[in-house]
Amino acid sequence: MTDNLSANRANFVTHLECAMTGERYEAGRLHGLSRVGRPLLVRYDLAALGASIDRDAIAARAPDLWRWRELLPVVNTANIVSLGEIETPLIAIPRSGGKGVLVKDEGRLPTGSFKARGLVMAVSMAKELGVTRIAMPTNGNAGAALAAYASRCGIETIVLCPEETPEINVREIAAQGARVWRVNGQIDECGAIVGKGAAEGRWFDFSTLKEPYRIEGKKTMGLELALQFGWDLPDAIFYPTGGGTGLIGMWKAFDELEKLGWIGSKRPRMYAVQAEGCAPMVRAFEQGLEHAERWENAATVAAGIRVPKAVGDFLILRAVRQSGGRALAVSDAEILRAVDDTARQDGLLMCPEGGATLAALRKARAEGLVAEGERVVLFNCATGLKYPMPMAGEPLDRTKEIDLSRL
Amino acid sequence: MTDNLSANRANFVTHLECAMTGERYEAGRLHGLSRVGRPLLVRYDLAALGASIDRDAIAARAPDLWRWRELLPVVNTANIVSLGEIETPLIAIPRSGGKGVLVKDEGRLPTGSFKARGLVMAVSMAKELGVTRIAMPTNGNAGAALAAYASRCGIETIVLCPEETPEINVREIAAQGARVWRVNGQIDECGAIVGKGAAEGRWFDFSTLKEPYRIEGKKTMGLELALQFGWDLPDAIFYPTGGGTGLIGMWKAFDELEKLGWIGSKRPRMYAVQAEGCAPMVRAFEQGLEHAERWENAATVAAGIRVPKAVGDFLILRAVRQSGGRALAVSDAEILRAVDDTARQDGLLMCPEGGATLAALRKARAEGLVAEGERVVLFNCATGLKYPMPMAGEPLDRTKEIDLSRL
Ligand SMILES: Cc1ncc(COP(=O)(O)O)c(C=O)c1O
Ligand SMILES: Cc1ncc(COP(=O)(O)O)c(C=O)c1O
Repeated sequence: MTDNLSANRANFVTHLECAMTGERYEAGRLHGLSRVGRPLLVRYDLAALGASIDRDAIAARAPDLWRWRELLPVVNTANIVSLGEIETPLIAIPRSGGKGVLVKDEGRLPTGSFKARGLVMAVSMAKELGVTRIAMPTNGNAGAALAAYASRCGIETIVLCPEETPEINVREIAAQGARVWRVNGQIDECGAIVGKGAAEGRWFDFSTLKEPYRIEGKKTMGLELALQFGWDLPDAIFYPTGGGTGLIGMWKAFDELEKLGWIGSKRPRMYAVQAEGCAPMVRAFEQGLEHAERWENAATVAAGIRVPKAVGDFLILRAVRQSGGRALAVSDAEILRAVDDTARQDGLLMCPEGGATLAALRKARAEGLVAEGERVVLFNCATGLKYPMPMAGEPLDRTKEIDLSRL
Repeated sequence: MTDNLSANRANFVTHLECAMTGERYEAGRLHGLSRVGRPLLVRYDLAALGASIDRDAIAARAPDLWRWRELLPVVNTANIVSLGEIETPLIAIPRSGGKGVLVKDEGRLPTGSFKARGLVMAVSMAKELGVTRIAMPTNGNAGAALAAYASRCGIETIVLCPEETPEINVREIAAQGARVWRVNGQIDECGAIVGKGAAEGRWFDFSTLKEPYRIEGKKTMGLELALQFGWDLPDAIFYPTGGGTGLIGMWKAFDELEKLGWIGSKRPRMYAVQAEGCAPMVRAFEQGLEHAERWENAATVAAGIRVPKAVGDFLILRAVRQSGGRALAVSDAEILRAVDDTARQDGLLMCPEGGATLAALRKARAEGLVAEGERVVLFNCATGLKYPMPMAGEPLDRTKEIDLSRL
């Protein structure tokens, strides 16, 4: 029944390496950033992996995240801390998005967002490596996922949110057993406090890309897409980009799949979507830079992509450029219109970050970047239920005569 | 890729019949209640069905609700109005629930609740049968699911909610394109208004069990459980019971599966869980009655089970009794404690109705109704994110010296 959660499977991790310098780090030990302050990437013995299992065997397993176990870092099955990481569905939005457009609905994952992918992996690895206390800066969803998985396995958690974080996220984090604080600043400023405590040895730092395993969890978005598209990737992917873990993770997944011979060399064009009120990647992309400067006075309704400075900026920009994609900014008004259209016309309530991807697709179509009939995937990274919706529900007095014709 | 949504498959519906009198009604035509005002049940040619497909073939299909197509009423594949009805995961809650207890997490379905199962079926059938305007009384989740599916296929929707319906549900319904009203009364009083309009020919009445297809959708909970448990059903099922569609549907599913020879005659004990502030089934069960009287002044935090009067009361009571189960009432305090425990200890945020099932299990254990080691399934029928959570998030001033030891 819970096959992937109980089966012991071979582990193929060989080492970790600095995404910037390539310097090697030993597997099976606790790591943060590399010596030069950049993310570490997990490396696998893909030749041995490919010799031991093929893509059809993976496809025949129960369709959850753990079917990809050989491509994941957890060594002991007993360390998996699962809350039911199902494969997320692809949903057509013919009226609001047009033909060929599918939304990958990540809101179906535990805690209602794709952050569950990264955190289930990072927490399982933390358990494996003996961590007992974790702290994290978050715009909301990552903190909720951390709280859920860490509480589940008895790891203590401290979460710092920018004061603009949606109320519901802060409450969810606390309800799931973490201690949570509201900081008068942006996410990178929360991150500075977390970093200070980590340096003092008070806790382990779980900031985006500052530990190496979240990206391995996010990678599964790319693995799933490959399988769901019959090992022939879509033409374009629109990803709402904050810290960029998902985009970097998918790019890494495609690379590993190609090395395994499970997909060819064709890649989707990767569109990194940001809000006009916080678009450091778009600015860097347009200026041809390798790194992005901090975005001052960041502001957007899409809290998940309100990230002024990303430690993996160069990895995001590299993937977008290599793929032939673009970094695109959309306004809050365009975001909210897209959310509204998709809910009203296609019955799918997306989060603002998901709305941003549809808004960006519309822009890309208008600029001729995406052709009619191309197979496009938009990432709706969280359930729309976590976000404010307009007031509704006019009163109706049942004790009086009701004019039914006006209902 | 979307196999079950595009494959044409044989249909085995023979007719409908009154759940009370057994009177036959023709398939392929629009029906409400039977002549005696009771629910209609869909009947299949199970002999022909069993000759045409076996359980392993179903198990080999993509794991969504539509893999059960031969056991469902939709005739033309083109009429399926899908939003990604995934198979919901079973999640262990070892700390708050104990060993052997699995939560079926229905919050992962479209619109965040199990109402999607019933409504995807009812709306698809409404489309098949040419309905263009639907009205429904709802405590929230059913209305949200109706709105989503109906908007998706261009059917107009009018939704009436009791004024105590959670704010987020009312907003969600409107966001997904329905017209929604707040009525100063309970769900059955909203239902009376809907019924009046239906009698006048203004719309089709989608009240619980007043059209025959929601139950067919809800039936898939039982089908999925059978498959997920390897065709050997669990020992006990705890179901939060309002209108009771799910309980009735599962019972029907088990019956059909046994007739097909896909499971044996063993049944789970069915526990119908209600709130002390609205427990008409519990009262009728204890008094040995076949029908339940209306519960006056209904009040509970678990809005989904605040149903004073159910048209399928006799079907609920019959299934509970035949199964050797019970109807159990729990207090709001016990419900909230259960929700809190499961979130803090196991990282799973349930809805109050889901909490009610854990509270009832605790009571059943205390009364010796459920033994240590039995395989128990609790239904968490909606995501906990739709419900109010306590305030959280103490402020932290980053511009001042922070005492990190107090975080
Ligand atoms: C809903 C949502 N979308 C997108 C993002 C951005 O994700 P990433 O950090 O991978 O760029 C976040 C991150 O918080 C999010 O919560
Ligand atoms: C969350 C939740 N649980 C349980 C129920 C009761 O379901 P049923 O009508 O099948 O008894 C509902 C119905 O609204 C609900 O929304």
